[in-house]
Amino acid sequence: MDMQDLTRDLHIKNKSKIIMLVADGLGGLQVEAGGPTELEAAKTPNLDALAKKGCLGNLYPVKPGITPGSGPGHLGLFGYDPLKFIIGRGVLEATGIGFHVGPDDVAIRCNFCSLDADGNITDRRAGRIPTEESAPLAIKLREIKIPNVEIFVEPVKEHRFVVIFRGDGLGGKVDDTDPQTTGIPPLKPVADDAASRHTAEIAAEFVSQAKKLLADQPKANGLTMRGFSVKPALPSYEEVYGVKSAAIAVYPMYRGLAKLVGMDTVGEPATLEEEIDVLEKVWDDYDFFFVHFKYTDSRGEDGNFQAKVAATEEFDKIIPQVTALNPDVLIITGDHSTPAALSSHSWHPVPTMLVADTARCDLCESFSETEALRGGLGHFEGVHLMPLALAHAERLGKFGA
Amino acid sequence: MDMQDLTRDLHIKNKSKIIMLVADGLGGLQVEAGGPTELEAAKTPNLDALAKKGCLGNLYPVKPGITPGSGPGHLGLFGYDPLKFIIGRGVLEATGIGFHVGPDDVAIRCNFCSLDADGNITDRRAGRIPTEESAPLAIKLREIKIPNVEIFVEPVKEHRFVVIFRGDGLGGKVDDTDPQTTGIPPLKPVADDAASRHTAEIAAEFVSQAKKLLADQPKANGLTMRGFSVKPALPSYEEVYGVKSAAIAVYPMYRGLAKLVGMDTVGEPATLEEEIDVLEKVWDDYDFFFVHFKYTDSRGEDGNFQAKVAATEEFDKIIPQVTALNPDVLIITGDHSTPAALSSHSWHPVPTMLVADTARCDLCESFSETEALRGGLGHFEGVHLMPLALAHAERLGKFGA
Repeated sequence: MDMQDLTRDLHIKNKSKIIMLVADGLGGLQVEAGGPTELEAAKTPNLDALAKKGCLGNLYPVKPGITPGSGPGHLGLFGYDPLKFIIGRGVLEATGIGFHVGPDDVAIRCNFCSLDADGNITDRRAGRIPTEESAPLAIKLREIKIPNVEIFVEPVKEHRFVVIFRGDGLGGKVDDTDPQTTGIPPLKPVADDAASRHTAEIAAEFVSQAKKLLADQPKANGLTMRGFSVKPALPSYEEVYGVKSAAIAVYPMYRGLAKLVGMDTVGEPATLEEEIDVLEKVWDDYDFFFVHFKYTDSRGEDGNFQAKVAATEEFDKIIPQVTALNPDVLIITGDHSTPAALSSHSWHPVPTMLVADTARCDLCESFSETEALRGGLGHFEGVHLMPLALAHAERLGKFGA
Repeated sequence: MDMQDLTRDLHIKNKSKIIMLVADGLGGLQVEAGGPTELEAAKTPNLDALAKKGCLGNLYPVKPGITPGSGPGHLGLFGYDPLKFIIGRGVLEATGIGFHVGPDDVAIRCNFCSLDADGNITDRRAGRIPTEESAPLAIKLREIKIPNVEIFVEPVKEHRFVVIFRGDGLGGKVDDTDPQTTGIPPLKPVADDAASRHTAEIAAEFVSQAKKLLADQPKANGLTMRGFSVKPALPSYEEVYGVKSAAIAVYPMYRGLAKLVGMDTVGEPATLEEEIDVLEKVWDDYDFFFVHFKYTDSRGEDGNFQAKVAATEEFDKIIPQVTALNPDVLIITGDHSTPAALSSHSWHPVPTMLVADTARCDLCESFSETEALRGGLGHFEGVHLMPLALAHAERLGKFGA
């Protein structure tokens, strides 16, 4: 019996509302010894006021020491063990561009590459061909027809594009065709199991037709395929938690991740302000609201401490509009840390806050990594966040008599 | 390899003594923002003195967000993963009234119900028939005879009673016969596996004979059966920890839970004072002592903050008598929180204290939920308590060379 078996058995329906505000890459790091993190440097009066009321902790989205990508980070926050539920690379890439992978789909990350006259790879990334050149080529590949399979080809960026095969009984266990070296041809697609043999055949035929269509291209006259994958079998939020859930996000990746766990993606907001407008609009229609804010992560990735501070302050500003809705449970967290000092995602735990009338008072006076160290949630793993949210919403019954 | 495999391999015998004092429902909650919990409001000079010496933490009996019943809560404290070892509802109900379920038993929770002339249920709880009317009816059902099966019928309360079938090879996987609605007859007992088919046949025969015996009853002329279950296969304390263990409790439920893990239930105390008298009396005969105090939970369930404060102070008073025994390890904990503010068990972690000469000093000055946030045990799950206790009793050898 795992935690989702437990919440599946124990959940109760009521009229309570839960908001999970995810500031992407929220956690930070000091730039110099003894200095503040981005969150500590930021003026966040609204978050600090909530911290006095709620309880704080440091959340490991996956496990201590593990730097999560967006997929595992969000799965953890959503309560899906990221070591059990693996989202394939092809599916994640498709999701990131807003393609909703269906149950009959195999998604594949593809790279344009350069081949010599003998068909050997001379450049695995087709000279990092710019997007304005590569996108029309990806679209040209839509001419490829294979019987009994629907094919989608979607440009991504530079040499990257995505291919989706849709058809009956297509397995996703096909090895990468990128040999990870030059001077030899791309590998043949090899299936790891019976269900994937058909997929491998389709992939081989796709490559063969693509080579003809790309034959006269100077750089991008070949392709490699990686990360073959099918939609992971994720139980839905409705099933495991009994909540009707809405996802509000600007970027396709986060809308897509939410859709994978059965959330409705609502509105088409372009800014945080518009996201909160959507939240207000759909307030009566859902029990659970996942709201994603991107720019704390982006500015961290840029390595720009001050810009991340500013993004954090921007995030703080919308809090009063959120609390005005009077959610029964309000969670503020992130899917991972993105310290400007590292210009990348990191493994550091994420300061997290849960505000509810039933939250046991702790001593925290503000919202920060350091203050969270004396918080009532302690250090905890992401998968525990949803059971805690449901408990405080009085949506979980007693386990055993 | 799980934790119990580890302690099974590593345990060492010595003359040390461990006491686990369980104040049921110990953890609490503030009534108003910023206010104290019950434990914080209580005057507990003896517990506070111990807190200066020992180390504190916040214990999740099962997992964060999960509200434990007495069964899973105690299993966690005893070091048995409550998600792995499930005590069936029938066994728990039998245990709660002091019936010791044996290895050949199937225990079943039964409800008297009211049936109309066509055999359809008109009231699933027989009009909540009072115990003084229902108990004689349960005892009357002891007249039922079925070949090769020993049958026990035990009154519980109002419409509830327990039936135990004792015989060779009886499986416990039989579906509930309560249709959870009125206007239709009780369901037939349906077995989920081969071993349970015989149980289902016996159950059907029991119901048939019972209907004849109850035919002239105005309210309780039928019955439904739920929670068919066999004794869970729990390894014993002696086996996994190498300790001879005694359980001292006033209420049958806790004596029964302790018996399920192989503890001896000693004495027949009626009060906490008598429990401590028993503890003193059997001190030389055992290595490990589980002592259960009920009233912190009862007063929490009543929703009476001041009464829970008083119960906590009552609990504090017996501490000097306990420490006078000079246990090598003394643990103070609870099987779950029962905040008066919620009038029920809750998911909040339980303030827990471990006192031993080898306890690493922390900064805690008193025993409370908030103080435990800076305790040396941090936040931790119940299953880790027994290995910690054994370690501090120097009863666990080194793992690996």
